[in-house]
Formats: sequence, C-alpha cells, structure tokens
Amino acid sequence: MVGPETFVHAQPVHGELSDTECRRLLATRTLGRVGLTSGALPVILPVEYVYDDGVIVFRTEPDAKLHAAVHGAVLAFEVDAFDPLTGRGWSVLAHGRATVLTTEHGVAPLPSLDLCVDEPQHHYVRLHCEIVRGRLLSSSEH
Amino acid sequence: MVGPETFVHAQPVHGELSDTECRRLLATRTLGRVGLTSGALPVILPVEYVYDDGVIVFRTEPDAKLHAAVHGAVLAFEVDAFDPLTGRGWSVLAHGRATVLTTEHGVAPLPSLDLCVDEPQHHYVRLHCEIVRGRLLSSSEH
Repeated sequence: MVGPETFVHAQPVHGELSDTECRRLLATRTLGRVGLTSGALPVILPVEYVYDDGVIVFRTEPDAKLHAAVHGAVLAFEVDAFDPLTGRGWSVLAHGRATVLTTEHGVAPLPSLDLCVDEPQHHYVRLHCEIVRGRLLSSSEH
Repeated sequence: MVGPETFVHAQPVHGELSDTECRRLLATRTLGRVGLTSGALPVILPVEYVYDDGVIVFRTEPDAKLHAAVHGAVLAFEVDAFDPLTGRGWSVLAHGRATVLTTEHGVAPLPSLDLCVDEPQHHYVRLHCEIVRGRLLSSSEH
C-alpha cells in the first residue's frame, strides 16, 4: 500500500523554458512519445526519432495504427528527462502537422535531415514543430 | 545534420506484454505521462504518480488545464523505460476514466491507496486502469 508520505512532496514545480532551449533539448534525445487521437481515445506511442532544424522524423511500420492516424493530423510529440536521485528534469512538448514521407513502394528524400529513405518496408513521418513549449520539472521533495 | 546511417536501425521491434506484466511494470516507476485531448489537440503531460491495485493517482495544480480536461474524461497514461546502451526497454499504455478526487476546499479519502488527501492547494486525479497494454522495445541496431 502507498502511504501518504509518498505523495506529499511528489508534485513537480514548473519553470518555463524558452523556445530556443526547447529545441536544443529536442536534439539531445532519441526516444520520444507521439500523442494522437485514435478512435476518439488519446494514445501515447514511444518512438525513436531524429530532430534537426525544427523537424522531427520518426519511422513507423506500414501496418501501424499510427500511420493511418498521422497523415495530415496534428500530433503532439513529447520528450522528457528526469533524474529521481536529484529530483530534477525537464519536459518539452511540440505540436505540428504530420506528413507521411514514404509509401510502401515509394522513396522520398528528406532534404532538411540530409537523409534519403529507400527502405520499402517502413514509412517515415515528418513532424514540423510549429509550437514548442517546455518546462523544468523539480520534485519538491528534494 | 543527421546522416542516413542514424536511422537505418532505429525502429523498435515490438513484443506484447501480458496484462499482469504491464501492471507489475506500472508499479515500478514514479514518472508517467498523461495523454488527453484539449482544445481538439492531443497533449502529453508528465506527472509523478503512484500505482496500486489497478489505480493510478497523480496530483495536479488547481488551475491546471488538466483538471478541467480530466473530470470524467478517458485518459491515456504511458510509462516506459529504455536503455540506449543495450537498446532494450518497454512501454505500457493504460486507458481509463479519470475522476478528480478533491476540490479546492475538499478532502477526499483514497481507500484503495490507503492515502488521505488533506492539502487544499492541489487536486488529485484517480485513474482506474481499465485497459492496459504493453510491449517490449528493442532497437534492432543492438
């Protein structure tokens, strides 16, 4: 059972991060989380990604629910880091419209990432980070 | 710039986790992410939480957008772990209806968590994990 002392100081306090800092932090990680609405339900899916110059690119399987959901949709993309030992961390949330870069038989260049996609079995999703917000996380128990 | 070799093996391969394993993993973490729809946009918000016996409880500030959004809404709740050195990890996604346990002036007991909330400045949100799914993440570059 979880006692009350577990929760008393578990609330993060928030400090806003600048747009520049958010974008710098986006480039420091490789695992992020895509947020979308699928079948009227919110869904969060972890993906590996690359970020460069305002653009996130991640790969999805051709039969993934994600692929159908993201074509033209606005997605949320979240990245965070938190060290439970120090009680400090950060979170960045980006929003942007997603476009699927490849079809099953297609090949698409990604000029802004200097990346050429030529794998037939996967689809790449490009997310232009139109709105980026971030905050510091600091657990008050530390 | 990001070269093509960065992405060639970056796709996780997935193995499904059992319901029991998902619920065990939910209890091993303290930082999770709430997924909801707010203003027609998907949103992902990191929160500290406790899990016990099918119930997640997390705290939110009284003026948070989250508070308005979650009262009676179905939320997604995601927890993951990934080690870039080994290329292995897991992700658990839960869905359930959220209820706000306290009001600004209220006090609410949380019997299933053996936790009594008596702080006037926060609201606690209880999420009953009705649907839980999980998968292994394994980056194929390892």
